[in-house]
Amino acid sequence: MELLKQRILRDGKSLSKEVLRVDNFINHQLDPQLLMAIGVEFARRFSYGRVNKILTIEASGIAPAVMTGYCMGIPVVFAKKSLPKTMENPLVSSVHSFTKDTDYSIIVNRDYIKKGDRVLCIDDFLAYGSAAEALCEIVEQSGATLVGIGILIEKVFQGGGNKLRERGIRVESLTRIEELDEGVIKFCE
Amino acid sequence: MELLKQRILRDGKSLSKEVLRVDNFINHQLDPQLLMAIGVEFARRFSYGRVNKILTIEASGIAPAVMTGYCMGIPVVFAKKSLPKTMENPLVSSVHSFTKDTDYSIIVNRDYIKKGDRVLCIDDFLAYGSAAEALCEIVEQSGATLVGIGILIEKVFQGGGNKLRERGIRVESLTRIEELDEGVIKFCE
Repeated sequence: MELLKQRILRDGKSLSKEVLRVDNFINHQLDPQLLMAIGVEFARRFSYGRVNKILTIEASGIAPAVMTGYCMGIPVVFAKKSLPKTMENPLVSSVHSFTKDTDYSIIVNRDYIKKGDRVLCIDDFLAYGSAAEALCEIVEQSGATLVGIGILIEKVFQGGGNKLRERGIRVESLTRIEELDEGVIKFCE
Repeated sequence: MELLKQRILRDGKSLSKEVLRVDNFINHQLDPQLLMAIGVEFARRFSYGRVNKILTIEASGIAPAVMTGYCMGIPVVFAKKSLPKTMENPLVSSVHSFTKDTDYSIIVNRDYIKKGDRVLCIDDFLAYGSAAEALCEIVEQSGATLVGIGILIEKVFQGGGNKLRERGIRVESLTRIEELDEGVIKFCE
């Protein structure tokens, strides 16, 4: 997606071989017009899939997911990172954060993703794939069908995307980065 | 806002004199069409204010804030609840959660709310007012101007809204609840 690529080149900050900061338009400050364009693009790419529910993770996934849900006319569920007091018997999966070198759980109310649902998972980054795999596991646990995964920025060199594709999962990344280094952002051709 | 009121009556769950659960359309599962209608309404109510930035708190504030930002054509900043490694010298304020009886910090990058900005704060609930006061304090610290506060659901009986109004702050609540009890939701006239 050319619009997102150009925005990353303009406003993204490549801090190392691993880390791309996009917190002035995706992760902390948000550009709603760009996010709506992202929603339109995901709706187009997954229009074939009879998707009836979107699943994402708080907090950075919410904005692109809600715009996609708006464009597709379907509800969005965001997985929580802490268990609310009043939630009984939730769907739970575990994510390893390589950036922070910690594990955390993601939690979804069983009422909101169910057998018969056709689910599109949305997330901002795809790196080693741990968060995306946890979303897939939530969908599996629920008995719903996974239609695919929509990603804003795939760091291809960290391998998570291809691991998922090898399992037969449709992964649509709006931008794909081949290489990062301080001040360098190189997209795949 | 009649649409939101009817939705609360249909899908909200009043669990006690204090707690209203709206997690099937606002807090966990989201209805993007309803959220867009909310964005349109906030844009209308604050159209006079030359607002150029929206400030909210992760995670539940993000969806209504990004829809409002879309309708107004301006960026959204969401305050974080934990300090990212790479953020230096942030704006910080403290929130007391009466539901969980804990305190937490909210954190905003100083680059994104600045002197000269005219800020609209958006949040899902207004109860005792601690989160809204923390947002006001972030705006004050930054040197920006607070135009007002937009709230989806004000629990009027918990007093936070009127405390803010007494300080001369414009608070626009889309729905105002006078009384809650198990199975009872009574709106203000």
